[in-house]
Amino acid sequence: VSRRPWGAAAKPIGWYDEKLHTLFTKKGYAQRFQVLRYLVRGKKTPFQTMDIFETRHFGRVLALDGIIQTTEADEFVYHEMMVHVPLFALGAPRDVLIIGAGDGGILREVLRHKSVRRAVMVEIDGDVVRDCARHMPALNGGAFKNKRGQVIVGDGIDYARKARSGSFDAVLVDSTDPIGPGEVLFTDGFYRHCRRILRPKGVLVTQNGVPFFQPDEVTTTRRRLGRIFRDMTFYHLTAPTYIGGMMTLAWGANSPAARKTPLATLDKRFKAAGFKTRYYTPAIHKAAFDLPPFIAELAEKAGRKKRG
Amino acid sequence: VSRRPWGAAAKPIGWYDEKLHTLFTKKGYAQRFQVLRYLVRGKKTPFQTMDIFETRHFGRVLALDGIIQTTEADEFVYHEMMVHVPLFALGAPRDVLIIGAGDGGILREVLRHKSVRRAVMVEIDGDVVRDCARHMPALNGGAFKNKRGQVIVGDGIDYARKARSGSFDAVLVDSTDPIGPGEVLFTDGFYRHCRRILRPKGVLVTQNGVPFFQPDEVTTTRRRLGRIFRDMTFYHLTAPTYIGGMMTLAWGANSPAARKTPLATLDKRFKAAGFKTRYYTPAIHKAAFDLPPFIAELAEKAGRKKRG
Repeated sequence: VSRRPWGAAAKPIGWYDEKLHTLFTKKGYAQRFQVLRYLVRGKKTPFQTMDIFETRHFGRVLALDGIIQTTEADEFVYHEMMVHVPLFALGAPRDVLIIGAGDGGILREVLRHKSVRRAVMVEIDGDVVRDCARHMPALNGGAFKNKRGQVIVGDGIDYARKARSGSFDAVLVDSTDPIGPGEVLFTDGFYRHCRRILRPKGVLVTQNGVPFFQPDEVTTTRRRLGRIFRDMTFYHLTAPTYIGGMMTLAWGANSPAARKTPLATLDKRFKAAGFKTRYYTPAIHKAAFDLPPFIAELAEKAGRKKRG
Repeated sequence: VSRRPWGAAAKPIGWYDEKLHTLFTKKGYAQRFQVLRYLVRGKKTPFQTMDIFETRHFGRVLALDGIIQTTEADEFVYHEMMVHVPLFALGAPRDVLIIGAGDGGILREVLRHKSVRRAVMVEIDGDVVRDCARHMPALNGGAFKNKRGQVIVGDGIDYARKARSGSFDAVLVDSTDPIGPGEVLFTDGFYRHCRRILRPKGVLVTQNGVPFFQPDEVTTTRRRLGRIFRDMTFYHLTAPTYIGGMMTLAWGANSPAARKTPLATLDKRFKAAGFKTRYYTPAIHKAAFDLPPFIAELAEKAGRKKRG
């Protein structure tokens, strides 16, 4: 859906090397993309440095501070899994709070659920919202103009602190990694406000990194969210450009009700919703909570330490 | 388990860029590893060019013709899933044929099954067997000296052609991609011999690429194996260095019996086996057959074409 005025035969102008596992996690490993052209290059927003570039296989790619955030070709995996797992588990969610997610992909998927009457998206960086809307319009897919959606450029922590108790069915935190402006979204204080503003059966879902490279994100989140929510676990997804294998999303709730929704109920809700997905299915939803031992053991170890 | 005489502070000597998605699939995308040193560099075997290099996060890495084959850090994912899914599904396999897999990882996992009295591994490239045994010994983990294992340096196609009908419970094809010496392992003729040498409930499993980058491998295999086996499907795994998200393994059998083994039976068999795994669990085994729609639709399309 990007316009490609330069034609399919455009010559690559060079390589874009992701910095996440060189500069930040220091694993000496990187993914790199051949760039056809830049739509946004090294733009300094008040919060971070932004690039949007065009590639042949991934379509347009958004990077912040040198870390890949989303690509047109594989964004569906992350967006479907962050949204449809909690929302179909809840059944008929009405109010959803989205923190971050400036590209609009989360809001777009949330609004496919007809029961949702209000989806509030709070993104701190207005440049991300504007430039994604302009250069990667399929990401929000019209959601930015939907009357059930509300886009606020502002501080998500602050919004959560001021929001009314028990006013949301789901809080979805589509943060960057705990580096830069996203760091405060990984703290106890923020998680406590999330719990307070959720309804009794409500669910918090947060982006939790790729355990093969970032095992500490699993142990830290397990310890922090485990202190705050009675029901705390992880589920997984596999998105090509979140390199390093499975990514985990953290799940926090005060009731296990939503998590334990039977497959047959999910099937019924998914069919009734009547929309097509490319990664999510009710079977994949249920299976996503079964973690391979190399990930499950990280979470268990952190759980034991807490009690020990 | 690699010896690291140069110490943890060793300075990287450069980058190794994988060529699979630049030179071969031409996607303008690559993974790259910071190299601490080479154990084998650009060695021309009679079949391919081999590199083995040391990295900080992945341990030692084997590449053939510029394509990453396995790394010490994540080899467990692929090896456990290629072996334990068919072998626990079968229950008490006695005879297993392995084609390729020169690093020894498949043989190692097969021999953990006590029912197996004979595992024959046929690898065409003796240099891969020798150099992996020397520089990546944890891969075979003693399997090359196990009396129940038999390592043949030779042509797998030829071995399958000459093998007795109905003499194997499982045939596991751990090939490279359909480029170079691995290409003949993706043909009708070879698959027909696999069917012939399998026992009535036997299973063929083959490496089938990463559909996000190589969708044609799913459609082609679906068509070919679908002509030969009554029960043909795919299952998935996520290994960090097989970049591009989920990889599929193809499953061919003349009886759906093994594939339909209930979870409770798998659980019992896995517990009785008494060994630890890092990725495989019976729950993950069952879930691996549920493909996301973007992969399932490739297989369905190919199935329809066949009948149309």
